[in-house]
Amino acid sequence: MNLPSDFLPDDERSNRTGLDEAVFCESKRIEQIERIILYAVSKRRSQLLTRLNPKTYSSLSDEVRKVVDYEEVSHTGIVGDYPESDKSDQIAVVAAGSSDVGVAREAVRTLAYHGRSCSEFYDVGVAGLWRITNIEDQLRQMSIVVVVAGMDAALPTVVAGLIPSSIIAVPTSVGYGVSEGGRSALETILSSCSPGVVTVNIDNGFGAACAAIRIMNQVNS
Amino acid sequence: MNLPSDFLPDDERSNRTGLDEAVFCESKRIEQIERIILYAVSKRRSQLLTRLNPKTYSSLSDEVRKVVDYEEVSHTGIVGDYPESDKSDQIAVVAAGSSDVGVAREAVRTLAYHGRSCSEFYDVGVAGLWRITNIEDQLRQMSIVVVVAGMDAALPTVVAGLIPSSIIAVPTSVGYGVSEGGRSALETILSSCSPGVVTVNIDNGFGAACAAIRIMNQVNS
Amino acid sequence: MNLPSDFLPDDERSNRTGLDEAVFCESKRIEQIERIILYAVSKRRSQLLTRLNPKTYSSLSDEVRKVVDYEEVSHTGIVGDYPESDKSDQIAVVAAGSSDVGVAREAVRTLAYHGRSCSEFYDVGVAGLWRITNIEDQLRQMSIVVVVAGMDAALPTVVAGLIPSSIIAVPTSVGYGVSEGGRSALETILSSCSPGVVTVNIDNGFGAACAAIRIMNQVNS
Amino acid sequence: MNLPSDFLPDDERSNRTGLDEAVFCESKRIEQIERIILYAVSKRRSQLLTRLNPKTYSSLSDEVRKVVDYEEVSHTGIVGDYPESDKSDQIAVVAAGSSDVGVAREAVRTLAYHGRSCSEFYDVGVAGLWRITNIEDQLRQMSIVVVVAGMDAALPTVVAGLIPSSIIAVPTSVGYGVSEGGRSALETILSSCSPGVVTVNIDNGFGAACAAIRIMNQVNS
Amino acid sequence: MNLPSDFLPDDERSNRTGLDEAVFCESKRIEQIERIILYAVSKRRSQLLTRLNPKTYSSLSDEVRKVVDYEEVSHTGIVGDYPESDKSDQIAVVAAGSSDVGVAREAVRTLAYHGRSCSEFYDVGVAGLWRITNIEDQLRQMSIVVVVAGMDAALPTVVAGLIPSSIIAVPTSVGYGVSEGGRSALETILSSCSPGVVTVNIDNGFGAACAAIRIMNQVNS
Amino acid sequence: MNLPSDFLPDDERSNRTGLDEAVFCESKRIEQIERIILYAVSKRRSQLLTRLNPKTYSSLSDEVRKVVDYEEVSHTGIVGDYPESDKSDQIAVVAAGSSDVGVAREAVRTLAYHGRSCSEFYDVGVAGLWRITNIEDQLRQMSIVVVVAGMDAALPTVVAGLIPSSIIAVPTSVGYGVSEGGRSALETILSSCSPGVVTVNIDNGFGAACAAIRIMNQVNS
Amino acid sequence: MNLPSDFLPDDERSNRTGLDEAVFCESKRIEQIERIILYAVSKRRSQLLTRLNPKTYSSLSDEVRKVVDYEEVSHTGIVGDYPESDKSDQIAVVAAGSSDVGVAREAVRTLAYHGRSCSEFYDVGVAGLWRITNIEDQLRQMSIVVVVAGMDAALPTVVAGLIPSSIIAVPTSVGYGVSEGGRSALETILSSCSPGVVTVNIDNGFGAACAAIRIMNQVNS
Amino acid sequence: MNLPSDFLPDDERSNRTGLDEAVFCESKRIEQIERIILYAVSKRRSQLLTRLNPKTYSSLSDEVRKVVDYEEVSHTGIVGDYPESDKSDQIAVVAAGSSDVGVAREAVRTLAYHGRSCSEFYDVGVAGLWRITNIEDQLRQMSIVVVVAGMDAALPTVVAGLIPSSIIAVPTSVGYGVSEGGRSALETILSSCSPGVVTVNIDNGFGAACAAIRIMNQVNS
Repeated sequence: MNLPSDFLPDDERSNRTGLDEAVFCESKRIEQIERIILYAVSKRRSQLLTRLNPKTYSSLSDEVRKVVDYEEVSHTGIVGDYPESDKSDQIAVVAAGSSDVGVAREAVRTLAYHGRSCSEFYDVGVAGLWRITNIEDQLRQMSIVVVVAGMDAALPTVVAGLIPSSIIAVPTSVGYGVSEGGRSALETILSSCSPGVVTVNIDNGFGAACAAIRIMNQVNS
Repeated sequence: MNLPSDFLPDDERSNRTGLDEAVFCESKRIEQIERIILYAVSKRRSQLLTRLNPKTYSSLSDEVRKVVDYEEVSHTGIVGDYPESDKSDQIAVVAAGSSDVGVAREAVRTLAYHGRSCSEFYDVGVAGLWRITNIEDQLRQMSIVVVVAGMDAALPTVVAGLIPSSIIAVPTSVGYGVSEGGRSALETILSSCSPGVVTVNIDNGFGAACAAIRIMNQVNS
Repeated sequence: MNLPSDFLPDDERSNRTGLDEAVFCESKRIEQIERIILYAVSKRRSQLLTRLNPKTYSSLSDEVRKVVDYEEVSHTGIVGDYPESDKSDQIAVVAAGSSDVGVAREAVRTLAYHGRSCSEFYDVGVAGLWRITNIEDQLRQMSIVVVVAGMDAALPTVVAGLIPSSIIAVPTSVGYGVSEGGRSALETILSSCSPGVVTVNIDNGFGAACAAIRIMNQVNS
Repeated sequence: MNLPSDFLPDDERSNRTGLDEAVFCESKRIEQIERIILYAVSKRRSQLLTRLNPKTYSSLSDEVRKVVDYEEVSHTGIVGDYPESDKSDQIAVVAAGSSDVGVAREAVRTLAYHGRSCSEFYDVGVAGLWRITNIEDQLRQMSIVVVVAGMDAALPTVVAGLIPSSIIAVPTSVGYGVSEGGRSALETILSSCSPGVVTVNIDNGFGAACAAIRIMNQVNS
Repeated sequence: MNLPSDFLPDDERSNRTGLDEAVFCESKRIEQIERIILYAVSKRRSQLLTRLNPKTYSSLSDEVRKVVDYEEVSHTGIVGDYPESDKSDQIAVVAAGSSDVGVAREAVRTLAYHGRSCSEFYDVGVAGLWRITNIEDQLRQMSIVVVVAGMDAALPTVVAGLIPSSIIAVPTSVGYGVSEGGRSALETILSSCSPGVVTVNIDNGFGAACAAIRIMNQVNS
Repeated sequence: MNLPSDFLPDDERSNRTGLDEAVFCESKRIEQIERIILYAVSKRRSQLLTRLNPKTYSSLSDEVRKVVDYEEVSHTGIVGDYPESDKSDQIAVVAAGSSDVGVAREAVRTLAYHGRSCSEFYDVGVAGLWRITNIEDQLRQMSIVVVVAGMDAALPTVVAGLIPSSIIAVPTSVGYGVSEGGRSALETILSSCSPGVVTVNIDNGFGAACAAIRIMNQVNS
Repeated sequence: MNLPSDFLPDDERSNRTGLDEAVFCESKRIEQIERIILYAVSKRRSQLLTRLNPKTYSSLSDEVRKVVDYEEVSHTGIVGDYPESDKSDQIAVVAAGSSDVGVAREAVRTLAYHGRSCSEFYDVGVAGLWRITNIEDQLRQMSIVVVVAGMDAALPTVVAGLIPSSIIAVPTSVGYGVSEGGRSALETILSSCSPGVVTVNIDNGFGAACAAIRIMNQVNS
Repeated sequence: MNLPSDFLPDDERSNRTGLDEAVFCESKRIEQIERIILYAVSKRRSQLLTRLNPKTYSSLSDEVRKVVDYEEVSHTGIVGDYPESDKSDQIAVVAAGSSDVGVAREAVRTLAYHGRSCSEFYDVGVAGLWRITNIEDQLRQMSIVVVVAGMDAALPTVVAGLIPSSIIAVPTSVGYGVSEGGRSALETILSSCSPGVVTVNIDNGFGAACAAIRIMNQVNS
């Protein structure tokens, strides 16, 4: 019995939507990931890899590892070149707790891969209100604020009540007890009293960045 | 077959805990409620009634209705006298949205029934941060702040990050979609990033007031 | 005991975010709704009302009803004037099934109240793929596509795979069995294989429109 | 104390239903699996093994491993001979994402074990609609299409809207956040707007193949 | 503001799949249902109506009611002619409890509307095993057995262990406590120890019939 | 800071209820388990240990391991003597699948520890009805039948429909997809159409045996 | 189209299990209930009716109502004669709160219908421990204690820790917030720290009584 | 790309609320934890560490480990000095089972870190009522009783029914089947029939201690 053919990047989707297909590594075997990376290299294509945890990364062959620009905190890898980032500074990525930084960085890396710069603000959770009001004026200048928050996930609501920008929330799975897995953070965001907050799946920094790129395509066009 | 005997107030519990048993009317039939009220009157006892909705209240006989001090917004009734409230002003009851007022008032009425005064602050949700910072100094003077909030329920976290008082949160069932029934509000509160927030069951203004009374017994003793 | 003061519209939030506070009627009593409407009239303010179902609407006094521009299918009411809609045609509102129309219209009415026009496309669910491909070219011209879908909620994924616009999904509560209440539709959307789809709470057409307005503020500025 | 007797294949069920009992290896210990395999060999019986993951497989003794036709991607093993497949080509197995291939192959292997051939189509998810419409004509010739899909699981609905064949969906557990474990994929399928889609348990490629065999028994008889 | 156009039956889907679109009445308003029925009459089309409960049916105008062949127990209505049923007797519809009859009849009516006859067996739940073994020989002659069961939903498993036919299960929402709403019945069926049982959504007799028609199209072609 | 004192067996409960306290090893550390066992030995007490998995067992010191009568399949250990079993043969322990044997044996071992004999019947699931009817006459002689079943958990219902004995069901966590963890098996049992079936927690063979002992105390007294 | 035949009581089950089939009225229509009752009368059979709420009862025809011995609090009806109760006094029915009395009485009525007497103890919840210890000696004399409890459902655990009798718990659906529907009460009972507590479905007083009868059959035989 | 700056303790929150920020180690990497500890040492600050499991602790460098006062059972570490505890003995920490001790000790250590003494009572679950009544008089002297309980979590209700002190419950995740993860314990506590019980998240001994400190600040001020 023959195995099915490998994953091949789908150029048609990229052309239609302006978004490259990322390789979600979590459910793939080492050999699959290696072949995808080597294929990209052989075709001189760029390739974004997400959910590539340190253990899997270190299991890749030396040959493969050395062509991957890997960032441990965000579990992302980038193969090949990508456009230099614009300098427009219209996007902010904001994270509530120090444990949310990995997801925030997944968004930052996805933006960079698509040629979008952003400003980053960390450790500004609502349990210390002064940390948010300190950056309020900076955030108000942004077209888009990506807000990454787990646990009580109150930050997107507070930010959205202060400024008119697009607010894309990302709930995170950080937590224990009822917070475990991130469902309560997701539901807090969906229940936000501030109108116009949108969300993506739990821990989906990649998706939030893609949504930001869709918006920026319209803003800049 | 004989029916079981009626509900009789349990004086031993009241003596032991300092808290009177309230009559939870939601799952009781009209006749049961009427008999309980008339029993209290005949014994010259006071009696707090909770979850007595307007439709049930209006189904009670005229004779019964006229001995009940009924408040529609909180679905509470009080039979008989109760101690004049202290003037210490150590408790605040704070509600995020106008739809949370009923639950907040259940707490206020329970406090009053036990001789405890409080200050009330309504419509101070975190979607408008200035509404909270406006009352921050007042809240800091309180021994206890009961915070009633539904939907994203971010208010208890924000308040607890600003002041050292006891914070008793009450999630409410206001909402739709994922907020329906109040579970997401409850989980937000349990996941609070501000240390030392405690909670009671959804919509349980009565329970929050009882917890406040337990604390005040210690504070004043 | 005095009742707490009434709901008062919060001009500061409106000034900060560019979004007016809507009155969510579902959890308010008739008298509250009437007072809010009469207050708006007396102050010559506009006011959007959501979740005002036909039964509640018909319980309002004649005096109040006649100042409300009411739409039954979307359970929305508008008091007072609102800006004439722009003619830019940058937003589409798309609904999968005929039962999703009410939620779609809540979005359309919210957009109109804020001076935003949109194109509407109904009954284009993925069970008949030709209905989507027929309108693909029109949708590609839009800056934003609001996609309203219940049941299997596959439409946002399919649309997002075809075009580069911003995609704001709204899951609906239409359905029975496992679809009842809309959770499965919401989760389908959060699990979308098309990158960059964002969502709001179940049945939250109002929220989707507010998110679209936040984006348009950036696009047009 | 004596241990209970071993698992023994039940010929009566096989005779009644036309379906052999497979050995579900996930909850069995190494020794149990080894004894079952050796029993089959000694009796010259065929035996299908499912959920035999690579780690367990590699823990089996050399003697046992060499009589098992093992396929890593599908976690299946086959002991002994099985009928040559028919050439009728009436069944298709279709998978949405590259991570669904393992479950799809479990179905293919179960069909083969029972003497049924099939055509396989991979990586045809709805985020790229052209991938489905490209194979629409081929699928329409099939009596049965087994559709394996995780995440948003929109593929069964789309396929079922295009063709009149029997559609047996298999939700998969691929995913994270709300998709984790496959419940949302399952519910999407149960909520399908295309009439006549049926489903089996999450990741149950074996069950889908058995359902297809039940149908083929009727088609060919 | 103009309302969106009405529901119009989609002939293309019918041509492609061999299944007519039914009108799901539960989430439609009286006027919508009336217009759909009158449209069918005016075009001399047939139309199946599901989830038309007695209260809604009795609210329809006399003119509309008299063109509907209504069955109260199954909440179904049929407008216009439909093909005389075949006499092949290849389908059985089996229901476990007397409360499952409504769902079973929805399947029977859907089959009839599409020109398919069936045999019906009621009140054969597994709490009385002799009731099933009594009809075992009759069921074995069938190509397809639709098994409707709520509560413990053990019947599909038992039947599928006895015979080689296609088994399409329909969980029902009958019950209370943990059975309320039908989730536990659905999960029992998905967990069936008998291989090859497939299922549809809770209470979805219509869907089970459509799945049976998809199969019969292959059997008879 | 001093650590709290060790677990000490509570003789008063044993005297009152006739049931010895078992040591649930899953959430205890190696040292705790060792000290408990050595304490029992030093006091010449018997002690039942449950949920002692092979890995934990093999981590115990040699000195401790040699005083424990350990059974791997049931994860149980017994320290010291226990009464010879009665010969009354009034209890049967029945298991549906080969994967349920571990839980069944936990019940058997708990019975033995308390001096109760039983008959064991394995691999008699309802997917092969003849396996149950074959033992029906034997089961009818029993005072109590403990029925252990996972997945669709239909066996307790079928057995309870055939005989008048006490039926104590034990749902098991065997399974995957919707069956994972055993909730669906538990709910099937709670929804049983056969009156008088009772249940214990998932995988709780120990609890079922204790319930049987409570009954036997009454039967034999 | 003919409707399926009516519900007919199944004598075989009654003969095999010693338990009569009760008619669960909640999901039956008025006409069905009336025909079942009249059938019982015509055959001079006894018949137990459960979940017959006051509104349904009052909708029955006068002719039918007068042959039913109806008890409002338990929603039960009995048609025809039933054996005089034994005087053995071996069963107690205990309820925690006044709102649990209806479910407790369903158990009492089911016992009486089958000729079993019992003692009743109400309003003995654990929030007032003295109420339990007051009746401890009486309960210890019983063979079986049926314990009905909602909310925190701690009573079965406390009772089972004090006495050696069989403990059959019945969780009730009384409550609000997280207690609504009775799941938390059910799970408390399944998690009981007292060994040997068994349970039935939420609100299933009938099932608990049937389980008690199964035990008593063994005790007295 | 630069990584975001490290976690820095927030003195403003500490000043405002009287509660130091603890470091939640579970979601932090080894290097992060080491840097936080060394920062505290360099600044001569004290620092509380929670959820520092033995495996992570033993992975810390020797240099770091030797400045941490580590307690294995509670997974807590303390860096630096902390105030000598008061001798007021107004707080009790009570745990139901021996498996709840770790969570109880997290509370005790948090209290000590903030200069608060407490009395500890272990293994006093309600399955042995005499163990509670034995300490009733001691508990009645306390201002606050922190009650740690998993499984059926009945202890907070029983204690709160006996004494007038503040009762702060902590549900624990100990258990299996329906108790796994602690949700059922949490819901039992929220459903408590004893008025005035408050709770924190599952396993949150730290949070309960902080709530106690908030109260003590009021009691002693």
